[in-house]
Amino acid sequence: MNEYLYGVDLGGTTVKIGLFDINGNLCEKWEIPTRTENCGELIVGDIAASVNNRTKIGDISVRGIGIGVPGPVGADGIVVGCVNLGWGRKDVASELSRLTGVPVKAGNDANVAALGEHWSGAGKDYDNIVMITLGTGVGGGIVMDGHIVSGRHGAAGEIGHMNLVRPEDVREKCRCGRIGCLEQAASATGIRNLALIMLQETEEESTLRNIQVDDLTAKNVIDHAKAGDPIALKAAYKAMDYIAAASAQIACVIDTEAFIIGGGVSRAGDFLVNGIRERYTARAFFPVRDIPFLLAKLGNDAGITGAARLVL
Amino acid sequence: MNEYLYGVDLGGTTVKIGLFDINGNLCEKWEIPTRTENCGELIVGDIAASVNNRTKIGDISVRGIGIGVPGPVGADGIVVGCVNLGWGRKDVASELSRLTGVPVKAGNDANVAALGEHWSGAGKDYDNIVMITLGTGVGGGIVMDGHIVSGRHGAAGEIGHMNLVRPEDVREKCRCGRIGCLEQAASATGIRNLALIMLQETEEESTLRNIQVDDLTAKNVIDHAKAGDPIALKAAYKAMDYIAAASAQIACVIDTEAFIIGGGVSRAGDFLVNGIRERYTARAFFPVRDIPFLLAKLGNDAGITGAARLVL
Repeated sequence: MNEYLYGVDLGGTTVKIGLFDINGNLCEKWEIPTRTENCGELIVGDIAASVNNRTKIGDISVRGIGIGVPGPVGADGIVVGCVNLGWGRKDVASELSRLTGVPVKAGNDANVAALGEHWSGAGKDYDNIVMITLGTGVGGGIVMDGHIVSGRHGAAGEIGHMNLVRPEDVREKCRCGRIGCLEQAASATGIRNLALIMLQETEEESTLRNIQVDDLTAKNVIDHAKAGDPIALKAAYKAMDYIAAASAQIACVIDTEAFIIGGGVSRAGDFLVNGIRERYTARAFFPVRDIPFLLAKLGNDAGITGAARLVL
Repeated sequence: MNEYLYGVDLGGTTVKIGLFDINGNLCEKWEIPTRTENCGELIVGDIAASVNNRTKIGDISVRGIGIGVPGPVGADGIVVGCVNLGWGRKDVASELSRLTGVPVKAGNDANVAALGEHWSGAGKDYDNIVMITLGTGVGGGIVMDGHIVSGRHGAAGEIGHMNLVRPEDVREKCRCGRIGCLEQAASATGIRNLALIMLQETEEESTLRNIQVDDLTAKNVIDHAKAGDPIALKAAYKAMDYIAAASAQIACVIDTEAFIIGGGVSRAGDFLVNGIRERYTARAFFPVRDIPFLLAKLGNDAGITGAARLVL
């Protein structure tokens, strides 16, 4: 009987579950809702039931389960806390293992997505990558010699909280309570905010002015920038500047082999990644100037893929 | 017969050599001059002769030799180049091994010093440290799970070239050709320059004005700051601010267990390290706020100690 792995990507709304062979081929995937009521006490049981059911009907041999969670995971594999799920400190791996009878490993979702891209996505030709996930926030994951770097407090790869955005480019505090974190200018929310500030501060003509403020999205900003709108371009370029600046700092610290750009904002494609690369090359320390910037390849499957890889 | 290790710290003026037992105890140390003539072609032979001579008279069993060099070393152990020595790309480890008959490993000097502090200095209680060496320039070394992180181009830990110093705080380009690298404000030269800029730009009274500009050193600035001189204090605090800011970025990337502050400037002692810690705690991302800052303990022996550790 062939061996299989489950990869679980636990989000605040849905749990994505994938069944993989041990070469990383995705055999099947499905979703169940994330039931966050009562401090998320049902979540682990729901996942176990779904997995056990699939194992039974498939009559397969399962090597183990990997799970990516939306919060920091310590070097000991214990979840430090997941605000979105109502979880405090929790040994998810032991709980899920007890309910399924197979080994379980847990990791932070952004780190796990990086591991997924490393295993079978844009990073598969490299031993060392840094993945930058541009979504509602900015997450990051570092893979070194094929393993996730999680750090003492599970905060390694928290690139979104590198503090380097100038005060004039933000209007509010970051979720972490400080001012000037990368995600305040480089997340979907951040890009939208950069454009709003520019629209408010100048009278310059812009096709973005045809959109109601409440309806304006990062996608609008990127689309209008691609169409040549001056304010949309300035906002997009500023976000790219900050991502490039953070990448240049990261390269001086760990000198990675490749940067992988993922998350919803990365649907902007070559416009985004080429813009970041150009700005990075212009400002990076000379020995690390040639590090490639690549678009993530796995999209929403990066999480389940990397989670499955955790088991190996 | 007990086994021994040689640790070699190759500098631009002298080569320091230490003989260690395999527990890291320094049995003996000595120096030979670094002969840089003819593109440094004599250096490896000189080291081999000195080591072979010591081995012969001691009649000892040698496990291997580690060598720290003043330039980047690739992940393959090959020296990328050492400007100070006249070396281009060079497989020092193979050359020295051929001349001594024992295994040799090479590493970058700042990385190797970090490994030394990790083995038997301020970092010995941790698996993961970042060492920041404040000397003529600013170097750095990262130890993760007991091993040096050298990076794709040997540039990992090049903390001195994190670019975050504001343009108004520098007057010249960095050695790397850019403007605003950490070492432009945090090295001995940088601290001196910060004070000079402040002395030129204000009329404020300062005991530093009693020192001829050409004679002014970072040590003067630190000493006068400790004595309460306002300009010296401002310059010292600004350097600490930048070191704290860089440390906060590093912590978001790799979430280390401890920062170790070494190099000549670290003789400023608690005044310096407490000042950096205070500024770090005030600005760091909350999960990593409690990372300790410690003074290096091995001084000039960090290089030979870490070099010896490379062998194990």
